[in-house]
Amino acid sequence: MDEAAPRTIEWSQEEFTEVRPGILGSTVHTPQLTVTMYRYRQGSRWEEHEHPQDQVTTVLSGTIEFTVDGAPVTMTAGQTAVLPGGVRHEAAVLEGDVVTLNVFTRREQAPKVG
Amino acid sequence: MDEAAPRTIEWSQEEFTEVRPGILGSTVHTPQLTVTMYRYRQGSRWEEHEHPQDQVTTVLSGTIEFTVDGAPVTMTAGQTAVLPGGVRHEAAVLEGDVVTLNVFTRREQAPKVG
Repeated sequence: MDEAAPRTIEWSQEEFTEVRPGILGSTVHTPQLTVTMYRYRQGSRWEEHEHPQDQVTTVLSGTIEFTVDGAPVTMTAGQTAVLPGGVRHEAAVLEGDVVTLNVFTRREQAPKVG
Repeated sequence: MDEAAPRTIEWSQEEFTEVRPGILGSTVHTPQLTVTMYRYRQGSRWEEHEHPQDQVTTVLSGTIEFTVDGAPVTMTAGQTAVLPGGVRHEAAVLEGDVVTLNVFTRREQAPKVG
């Protein structure tokens, strides 16, 4: 894929891989940004981690428990979390399925476990 | 607002300003990213323009005609467009209202008219 070319993404046609138990992710890049859609199944959880990239997470559907710097917040569809790089965060899906759209300053690989 | 602090955004509580006739925008920043929600009223249009920042636009509701480098594409809720910096693009809302979530590499002000 030519990352320097503009592109429209129909996520249902993208390849998703299981990045954590019950969490499927699909990623595209621009030269300066990384975009990942995560589909969380009920009961799935992303353990606390951090990364140097800034992150913008928008909930597209469902309800997710997001914990940022130890402070829990319940996020629902249409809400956005903005995280500067280096902030520890985790996510848990207690009920139903969830889809989030995540944009990061460019990164080459999934975050390391903190 | 401390841009280096993490934050959760409930967009209905944010201030929107009319950036083009019938297009309301609200913007938040992280140190490295700029996030803008646009609410388009039916019939509104963003004239062709470009900017050096990369852009990721996700349609949250409605249908928008997006034209990228002269090529039109109809985008519906859940679809994402990725645009490297410097690519000319425009948008028009022909029917109904539209909400888009836009993430850019950091920028200080609205794009200049091309």
